[in-house]
Formats: sequence, structure tokens, C-alpha cells
Amino acid sequence: MNPSTSLKVRLPALVLVLEVMLLVLYSLFVTYDDNANAKMQNNATKPMENTLYRDYPFFADVQVLIFIGFGCLLAFLRFYGFSGMVFNFLTATFAIQWAILVQGYFQFYHDGKIHLGVINLINAEFACAVVLISFGAVLGKTSPVQLLVMAFLEVPIFSVTEWAVLKYLRINDAGGSILIHLFACYFGLGVTFVLYRPNLRNGHAKEVTGYNSDILSVLGTLFLWVFWPSFNSALTLKGDDQHRAVLHTFIGLTASTMTAFALSAVFSKNGKLTMADIQNVTLAGGVTVGASVDMMITPAGAYALGVLGCTACYLGYRYLTPFMAKRLRIQDSCGIHNLHGLTGLISCTAGICAILLATEETYGPSLYETFAHRSPPEGDPKLLELQQMIPGLKPGLGRSAQEQALYQVAAIFSTIAVAAVGGVLTGFILKLPFLASPPDDNCFDDEIFFEVPSDFYSEVKKAPVSESDSKV
Amino acid sequence: MNPSTSLKVRLPALVLVLEVMLLVLYSLFVTYDDNANAKMQNNATKPMENTLYRDYPFFADVQVLIFIGFGCLLAFLRFYGFSGMVFNFLTATFAIQWAILVQGYFQFYHDGKIHLGVINLINAEFACAVVLISFGAVLGKTSPVQLLVMAFLEVPIFSVTEWAVLKYLRINDAGGSILIHLFACYFGLGVTFVLYRPNLRNGHAKEVTGYNSDILSVLGTLFLWVFWPSFNSALTLKGDDQHRAVLHTFIGLTASTMTAFALSAVFSKNGKLTMADIQNVTLAGGVTVGASVDMMITPAGAYALGVLGCTACYLGYRYLTPFMAKRLRIQDSCGIHNLHGLTGLISCTAGICAILLATEETYGPSLYETFAHRSPPEGDPKLLELQQMIPGLKPGLGRSAQEQALYQVAAIFSTIAVAAVGGVLTGFILKLPFLASPPDDNCFDDEIFFEVPSDFYSEVKKAPVSESDSKV
Amino acid sequence: MNPSTSLKVRLPALVLVLEVMLLVLYSLFVTYDDNANAKMQNNATKPMENTLYRDYPFFADVQVLIFIGFGCLLAFLRFYGFSGMVFNFLTATFAIQWAILVQGYFQFYHDGKIHLGVINLINAEFACAVVLISFGAVLGKTSPVQLLVMAFLEVPIFSVTEWAVLKYLRINDAGGSILIHLFACYFGLGVTFVLYRPNLRNGHAKEVTGYNSDILSVLGTLFLWVFWPSFNSALTLKGDDQHRAVLHTFIGLTASTMTAFALSAVFSKNGKLTMADIQNVTLAGGVTVGASVDMMITPAGAYALGVLGCTACYLGYRYLTPFMAKRLRIQDSCGIHNLHGLTGLISCTAGICAILLATEETYGPSLYETFAHRSPPEGDPKLLELQQMIPGLKPGLGRSAQEQALYQVAAIFSTIAVAAVGGVLTGFILKLPFLASPPDDNCFDDEIFFEVPSDFYSEVKKAPVSESDSKV
Repeated sequence: MNPSTSLKVRLPALVLVLEVMLLVLYSLFVTYDDNANAKMQNNATKPMENTLYRDYPFFADVQVLIFIGFGCLLAFLRFYGFSGMVFNFLTATFAIQWAILVQGYFQFYHDGKIHLGVINLINAEFACAVVLISFGAVLGKTSPVQLLVMAFLEVPIFSVTEWAVLKYLRINDAGGSILIHLFACYFGLGVTFVLYRPNLRNGHAKEVTGYNSDILSVLGTLFLWVFWPSFNSALTLKGDDQHRAVLHTFIGLTASTMTAFALSAVFSKNGKLTMADIQNVTLAGGVTVGASVDMMITPAGAYALGVLGCTACYLGYRYLTPFMAKRLRIQDSCGIHNLHGLTGLISCTAGICAILLATEETYGPSLYETFAHRSPPEGDPKLLELQQMIPGLKPGLGRSAQEQALYQVAAIFSTIAVAAVGGVLTGFILKLPFLASPPDDNCFDDEIFFEVPSDFYSEVKKAPVSESDSKV
Repeated sequence: MNPSTSLKVRLPALVLVLEVMLLVLYSLFVTYDDNANAKMQNNATKPMENTLYRDYPFFADVQVLIFIGFGCLLAFLRFYGFSGMVFNFLTATFAIQWAILVQGYFQFYHDGKIHLGVINLINAEFACAVVLISFGAVLGKTSPVQLLVMAFLEVPIFSVTEWAVLKYLRINDAGGSILIHLFACYFGLGVTFVLYRPNLRNGHAKEVTGYNSDILSVLGTLFLWVFWPSFNSALTLKGDDQHRAVLHTFIGLTASTMTAFALSAVFSKNGKLTMADIQNVTLAGGVTVGASVDMMITPAGAYALGVLGCTACYLGYRYLTPFMAKRLRIQDSCGIHNLHGLTGLISCTAGICAILLATEETYGPSLYETFAHRSPPEGDPKLLELQQMIPGLKPGLGRSAQEQALYQVAAIFSTIAVAAVGGVLTGFILKLPFLASPPDDNCFDDEIFFEVPSDFYSEVKKAPVSESDSKV
Repeated sequence: MNPSTSLKVRLPALVLVLEVMLLVLYSLFVTYDDNANAKMQNNATKPMENTLYRDYPFFADVQVLIFIGFGCLLAFLRFYGFSGMVFNFLTATFAIQWAILVQGYFQFYHDGKIHLGVINLINAEFACAVVLISFGAVLGKTSPVQLLVMAFLEVPIFSVTEWAVLKYLRINDAGGSILIHLFACYFGLGVTFVLYRPNLRNGHAKEVTGYNSDILSVLGTLFLWVFWPSFNSALTLKGDDQHRAVLHTFIGLTASTMTAFALSAVFSKNGKLTMADIQNVTLAGGVTVGASVDMMITPAGAYALGVLGCTACYLGYRYLTPFMAKRLRIQDSCGIHNLHGLTGLISCTAGICAILLATEETYGPSLYETFAHRSPPEGDPKLLELQQMIPGLKPGLGRSAQEQALYQVAAIFSTIAVAAVGGVLTGFILKLPFLASPPDDNCFDDEIFFEVPSDFYSEVKKAPVSESDSKV
């Protein structure tokens, strides 16, 4: 037992500090939003029209996706199942608590208070998803103390970026391709770049899957697969926009699933399927449709995006991840650059195309709802005309499609830049000596941070671990 | 490694053909339905009244049932967990994609287009459930290529049957006892009859469960159990009909669960419970209430049906499955004839009784909604009278209860006949030489189609496989 | 094979008796409620306003929590996974069936019939949760026959207590801290006190976890964690009350999760985390916010309660459970006294404080909805005044906050007393000789009640079981 990785003091001390900070800030700044505040109910209130009933089903679905889907997916290593599942639990929990505050400050703050309702929780879950995706890059090589510190830093950097992009660049990004997937990916790569471990450049004897861990991980994939439509549509406009988001996500996922099986077989040495592909590459379609998920891209368009995203993701796993590990010092444990980076870029490109092609002919006057920034500005006579067709249409910025597309491009590059720089800086902080970083030999090993049952040891002893066995 | 089972060319080639076909057909024929089409929104549209909010919760529940419930349930074999879970994933994905088109053509086609909304996805999931039930008959003895071909053939045969029965025979079958369970069962038996493997008539050394696979399979059972009420009620009329469907399915399942435990104990050699019974027989009640699930069968009626269906299902597993395997050349891996065939027949009989006993006294004027074909035809003065009590009641065929019952009988026999013939023909096609059918020795073995982790081999070596161990 | 534990006759005989009884009583007394009764629909009925759509989502969530969450959580022992998961399934199923009748008689009985809708099922699930919590105290040491008998006795004792407390004491207990958690805990402790096994006072060689069972159990924890907000809010008032219940439960759980990790590390011998803490102590916050879950306790209040409850729960596991086992003859297998008893008491105290502090200033006129018994009685002019602000406000008892607090105290003590006495009496009945109670040697062992696959035996043989390994 290496004393420098003991959690006995480090973890409780950090948690104590965080909890005291959170408790003080919650006391001072967090109150209920109007839908959760008893005092705001009056004789015009209809209880069943509370926003709870609109938001809670999507919140619950995303909860399953985050805690169970991610949790199981990250438990794919034979000797790292406890850590994958449980560190996901810890990190996600803290990230949401923290995002309620930080993101709440940027999005739900008025009259000196953050106003809390289930809608904030959904937003906080998205910030949490960002942290968990980044976690995928450093899985197996970080302590829970480091993960909490990472979440502590990533949530504010993300929230500021999100706020700045939404307030100043004003983009369309319903499924979060730019703000969630690209940010999370390049932040995670930044972190893992700094945490480079030269001794692990030829893999690690314990970085292997097992029969049961592979099945558990597929179970996680299935939960992510099933609830991804809720994730992609949770924050779209209600009505037809959300309806399309569900359809596109579903179709994109089915397309990438079929494609993943085909690619897994065609590139395999002896014509067999590889579980890692089933676990990860099948999900590419969910990311790829993200940026255009609420637009009129047609069902066939969603299908094509699923195939395309999946192919990029697969080839990334096969060629880019090993190249990055060997040449660029980027050890990306779960290959997040493939599932979130490459697919995110394709998604953003598709989103820009969809924006450029969007016309009133296809969308009718709803065009100015889905693309809110193209709505005419206050005072424009066209606005009044439109408001007769869509009561309650808000004035926008009167952008053309081309202008909107340029702002999307700006958002992509600035998000990637901020994320990468933020990730690198975070990485340096995670290298501080007292954060219980596991030594190289103890990476990918539950035993360093967990009391393990006796059958774990017998499994370890028995394991005829070989290079051919190790997961790329 | 037998080269004839390599997926390297076969699977990708088939997937490529299917994807190109799907993509072309989606491009040409699939558009959004009015609730998902931006252009159809106008100043009378209320976003929260979009059909999405009515259909999506049931869709999501059925997704869990299909991908996670079925997936885990089919992973009950010790050396076939990857295959059970992952082939379910692949087959279900393709079946839904394909059913969106084929079934969409029969049910949602007008103005030259299939109109797509979440309601189509629910319908497609039902077609998918048909394929997965049939898959249960050939589990362990088929390649993923064969399974895709089976889905490719079964979906259209099912869709035509469904369309013909609903259009010409006009039956009541809310829970799908006839169209889903009986069709799927006899189709699957037809396939497995043709794929008969004489060398496996005394079982197979690898057709055994393991401790972890048994638990995973029970987990699947629990997901099916929990979400079965959503499955049985997803396509009923909204309101009290759907409410009853939920109640009856729940009560039927609780009754069959209690009964399954009792039967498992009473028939066991040494007074112990058998996991296979818990995994399968407990679910019989969900099927048995299917055909009458929206009718006024009373809670006690649902209870009795659960007990009855469970008993038939159990006795089927115990006596009929071995008999069919030995005498009728029907090797039914998961015993779908018990869980879907026998219980389906009981369900249909109960449905007919419920139809014959249905009176205005019990149902009030709603009788003509639940039994839409008994509603008076256009022009009948009785229709106007009823429409005063139920605004929006649609004219029907003016059938008597007895007439409706006869049409149900006709539907049962014709569905079984079409399914069995379709299954046999499909079976012959699946015997084509280039579909990677596993040799007898490699049945029930993940290793033939998957790269497996090293602990799989050590498990295989260790296994003191004996006949007494094998699952009947 | 000890013949006295054979289930061959005992279990089927008991199930047969129970099923006949249930079937007769359902036939005689159970009918549909107005929302499920076809005859009650008329030309004013709006199908989408059926209570189904209000209640079913919460029902489905609680189903997942009970059958999958509890089921997996209770499967944490290496050689007792079948039993933990499957006995939970059996016991829960029977408890709900039985509660529909017994609780239905107290709550939904009029005109000589129990009126059944999904709302009854939610109530029955709560009674079922009571039984399952108590089951935690005797896990590993009881036969399924004993568990059915326990459920048979506990459901009526619980239902009478619930009815008496709600009718005569009229308390606020939205999350069920008093009626569910305290009742279940002290009933379970009463049972296990009587079932004391002196030979197990130093633990049992098979009372150990395994690597896979620990992961499965965490999966159960995650399901409980994710769906606990639905559990705590299922029976609150609709609208802002339910909204707050969701928020508080979520925040309480996040706070207890963070705290559980810190405590697990700080008290461990060598600075490692213990899975049992992750599995249980993380959930304490859900219980602790229960009694005040719908009140205006502020988000920070919910956070503080989560930390407090978790700390009490953790210290209970560490010091109180061993003490109770050694000195008080109370062998509490899953430590329910910590997760439900101690946290329940804290929750009740917090609820009383919240009641004492509740003012019109904070709640506005809604005060008299959330605290219905403080509403002025029929005829009071203040009532008319309030009814102008809240149409439909029901007359109450005109209690002051102090009076309400006293009734809460009375409810706590009387519930604990009835539960403990009921548990002790039930314990004596469970000691009757023909209930297949497992001998000491066969406790915590699936093999006594299940046909187990061959790899179970090899696992048992291999296991280097030692005292240090055993779970406290």
C-alpha cells in the first residue's frame, strides 16, 4: 500500500471543504423558482401545468443515462469495475451540485438569487455530462481526489464558455455538439496530454476487459442508446422541434449501430466482432445528429449522418487513437476523441449545412422559432407579420443564414480553444503531488482505492494476462 | 476457426446492401408526420399538445423492454452472453429500421409518403418484438447474418398479415396476443423446424447457464415485468381503456409470478427453485391478458388469467418442449411455444369470451369505442343517438358480439397458418450455405463470432460440464 | 439436502392458499375506479385527463425502484445473489397483491367495493416497500415461505397503523419517514430479534461479498438513487409541492453521496473505500428529507439534512450495528436500522422543525394546502377568505403549528411501538417449525433453495473465505 495514494485524509478533507462551500453558497444564493415556490401559487395556478410535468420525465431519463448508462459503460475493464462505476457516481454527483450553482449563476440568477427548479437540474446534468466525457480520457489513471478537482475546475470553465457562446455568438446547438461534445472532448484531451505517462505507452497489463465486465459495459451502452433521444431533445423547443429531435436521434443511432457491426467485422483479423466496438461505436449516431437534431434534416439525413459519424468514429478508434498515443503523447483511455470529437465535428458541419439550407419554404414561419436569431429584430414590420402567424414569436437579431453559419464556425473554434487550454491548465493542477495520483503500476486496478473482496485477488492471480489480450 | 463462419465479408456486405436500400427508400418515401413537421405548425398549434407527449413515454418504456429486457433475458447461457445480448441489439435495430418502412407503407402511407412520428416507432417496435420472440426459438444456433436475413423476411410477412387482418377481419387485439405472440411463435417454430440439428437432439455441452448469466437473465425478466404494462397498453385507446390495460397486465403478471414459484417448487426433484422458471414462466401473465387487456374482464378475471396462463406455460416447458424436440424435430431454444404460443392461445380464447360477454350494461356507450366494429354503420339512426353520448364516435360495421368472435377465430387460424408457412420458407432461405451458420460443435458459444477476453477461455476449460447441468 | 427446508410442498401449498384467498376476495370486492371503468365515461370525459397520465409515470418509476433497485441491492452477497434478487421479486409481488386488498379496504372502499386504479397500485407499492425494508433485517436467514408469511402479516399491521395514524392523528409525512421507514425498520428489528441465531454472532463464513455481486449491488443503489425522487414525491400534492419534493430528494441524495465517500475513506483502516458504504450510506439523504420533503425547507436545508442523515447512518453501520448484534441480540443483515431507523428519526425531527417554522409569510395561502390540518374548520370565516385565494381549499382542523407538531410526535412513538410489537409477534410465528427456516450452516447460501449451476460450486470450493473478508 503506497501511502501517497491513501484517501484517508485527502478525500475527506476535500469533500469537507467542498461541502461547506456548497452549503454556504446554497444558503446565501439558492431559492426556489416560481414553479417550486409555495408563495407564488395563487388562485390562477393550475397544479398540473407546473413545469415539473414538462421537465421531470426528461430529467429522469437523463439521470438514468448519466448514473447508470455512463456508470456501466465505464466499468468495462476487468480489474477496474468498482472504480469505473463508483468514480462516475461520485464525480457526477459533485458536478451536478456544483453546476447548479455555477451554471445557475449564469442562467437562472436574478434578484440576487439563483432560482431552482427541475429545469436547472437538467442544465446541470448537461454540465455533468461534460465532466464525465472528459473523465473518459483519464479513466484508470486518476484518483477520486483528482476527479473531484477536475470537476471543480471544468464546471466553471464550461459554464463561462457556454454563457459567452450563447450570449455573444448566439448559436443553434440543440443536441450540444459544440458545447457539450467538443468542449468535453478537447478539455479531456488537454488534461490527459499533461498527465502523459510514458511507461504506459505500450499499454498496461491490467488494461484488459473480462467476460462479465464486457457484458456490464454493453448494458451501459444499451441504457445510453435507449435514453439518448431524451438527452438530445431535453432542451429543445417544445412541440414539433422536440418531436424531430427524438426521431433524428433514434434514426441516427440505429444507423450507427448497423454500421458499427459491419465495420467491426470487416476490419477484424479473423472475421469476429469486437465488444469495444459494440460498446462505443454504436453510439456515434447520437452525437452526430446533435447540432441539427431539431432541424428539418429529413429522416434520411439523420440516417446518413449516423452512418457517417459511425465510420469516422470507428476509423478514429482504429488509427487515430493509437497514433495520438504514440506520437502526440495523448493517452485517451476510452477514445473520447472518436466518440465525441470526430463525430462532434461532423455534427457541427452538418448543423452548418442545415442552417444554410433552411428556408421558409421548408419550415414555414416556424423557421423563426427554430432559428431564433434569424427572427426579425424589434420594430421590424416583418416581425409583426410573423407574430400574426406565430403568436408569441420573440424578436431576434435578423441574421441571415450565412451570418448564422459564420457564428457557428466561430463558436466551434473558440469552444475548442477554450476547452483545450482549460484542459491543459487543469492537467497541471491535477499533477500537484498531494492528489493521490496512482503510480503507473497501479493504474487500471481497483485494489489501490477499494477494499476488494477475496475473489478479486484470485481473479488477478489466475489471469493469464498477455499483450494480445489488451484493449486498444 | 472455421472460415465458413467468418463475418469478415458476409456481415459487412449484407449490412451495406441493407443500408443503401434503407437510405434510398427513406430518401424517397419517408417524411415527417404533421406533429413533427415544422411547416404544419401555425397560430393554432399548442406545442404541449403535440402527440410526442402522449406517445414518447410509452415508446421509451418499450425501448427499455426490447433492448434491455430482451437483451438481458437472452443472455442466460454461460458461454453465450455476448451473443444473446448483442445479437438482440443488432436484430432489434435492423427490425425497427425496416419496419418503419414496411409497416409504415401499410399504415402511415398517404400522398406518396410514409409520414413519420413517434407513433410509427411504437408500431415498429411491435414488429421488432415479433422478430425477437422468433429469435428465441433459434438462439444459439444462428449467425448474425442469418438473424438479419430472418428479420428482413419476417418484418414484411408480419406487416402484410397485420394489415390484412386489421383491414379485412377487423379484430380486437390490444395486447397483440394474436398478431404479435401467436405470429412470432409459429413463425419461429417454422424456422427452427427447418433448421433442425439432429446432433443436438440430446442437448449440447455448452447449453448451460452460469451463476452470473442466470442473474443477468433475471434482471432482464424484471425489466420485462416492470415495463410490460406499457407494452400491452401502448396502442390501446387513450383514457379508461389504457387505464384498464395497465391494471390487467400488472395483475396478470403478479398472478403468474406467484404461480411460477409454486410450480417450480412442486415439480422439482428436491424441492428447490429453478432459475429458468423464474426467468420465463413468471412473465406468462403478461401475454395471457393480452387479447382482452382493454376489456372489462374485472381484476379477478385478470388474476385468473395470470394463473391459468402460467400453469399452461410451465407445463409446456416441462412436457411439451422436450416432446417437440424429440418427436417433432422442433428445437425451441428458449421455449417460445410455452411463453408465447400456449399463453397466446389461452389469451385469444379469453378475448373471445370477453367479446361474447360484453354488453352495454357493463360498458355503457363506451362499448362502441372499445369494440369499434360493433359500432353502428354510417347512416344508422342508432349511431346518431350514440354520438350524442360519445362525441366523435366513429361509424363501425354494426357487428354483433358473435360475429366479432367469429372474426377473431378466423384471425387466429389464418395468422398461425401464415406465420408457420412464412417461418418454414424463411428457414429454407436461412439454410443457404453462405450465411455463416455455426457448425453443431460451435453452437451456444460466443467464441465463434466474438473476440472474447482471456477469462472466457479459462472459464470454458474449468467448466465441469455435465448433462445434469444442462438446461431443459 | 436437509428435508425440512424442501420447498416442494410448503411453498406451493402456501401459494395455493394465498391465491385462492386473493382470487375470491378480488372477485367479491375489487372493481374499477371511475377512471378505469368504461361505464363511467360519458360525453364530458376527456381521455387525456384520465388519472392514468398523472399517476402512471410515478408508478412505473417506483416499480423500477422496487423490483430492480431493491432486487439488485439485496444481491450483494457472493453466494446469495439468486436469493436476494428472486426472494425480493416474490415477496414484493405478493405484498402488492395483498396490499391492494388490505390497504384498499382502508383507503379505497365505498359502496361495498374496493375501487381500483393506478393510484391504488402506487399506495400498494408503498406497503410493499415497507415489507422489503423489513426483509433487509432477515436477509440470508429466512426461507421464501417465511418471507411470504411475514408479508402476509406485515401488510395488514402496516395498513391498520397507516389508517389509524392518518385518520386520527392526521400527520404530515409526504415521504413516508414515519409510516414507511420507521415502521419498516422497527418491525424488521422485532422480527430479527426473535429469530436471533446465537451461532451466527461472530458472522458466517458465507456472509461475504464478491466482485460481481458488489457491482450488481451498486447498480441497484444507482437505480434507487435515480428513482428516489419519484418515490418521495409520488403521493404529495400535485404542483409546487411535488416539484419541491423532487428537488429536495435529489439534493439530499447528492449531499449524502458526497458525505458517504468522505466517511468511508476517513474511517477505513488503510485509506480505501468500502463498497458496502457506497451501496447503502449514499442513499441516506433520500430518507432524511422524507418527512419535510414537500415543505419550504430551502435547498440548503435539504443539503444539510443529507449530510446529517448520512453521517448518522454511517456511524450506525460502524458502531451501532455490531453493538446491537453482540449485546442486544439484534442481527440486522443489511443494517436497516441505520438506513431507515436513524435517518428516519432525524427526518421526523426535521419535519417537526419545519412544521413549527412554517408561516404564511413563507408559504402564502398555500400553507393551508401543504399543512391541510391547519386549514380553518368548516364555518370559520377565515376559511372563506382563504378559499377566495385558493379555490377548492378544503376545511381542516384549524390546528396550530404546535398542535400539529405534537401529533407528529405522537405518531412517531405509536408507530414505532406498534411496529416493534408487530415485528416480535411476527417473529414468533416465523419460528413455527414447518416454515423451512434454513439451518445456521446454510444461511447466506443460494444452494439450499435453488438449483444452482455448476460454476457456483466451483466458486464455493475456490473461495478462500476468511473472517477478515466478511462484511460487517
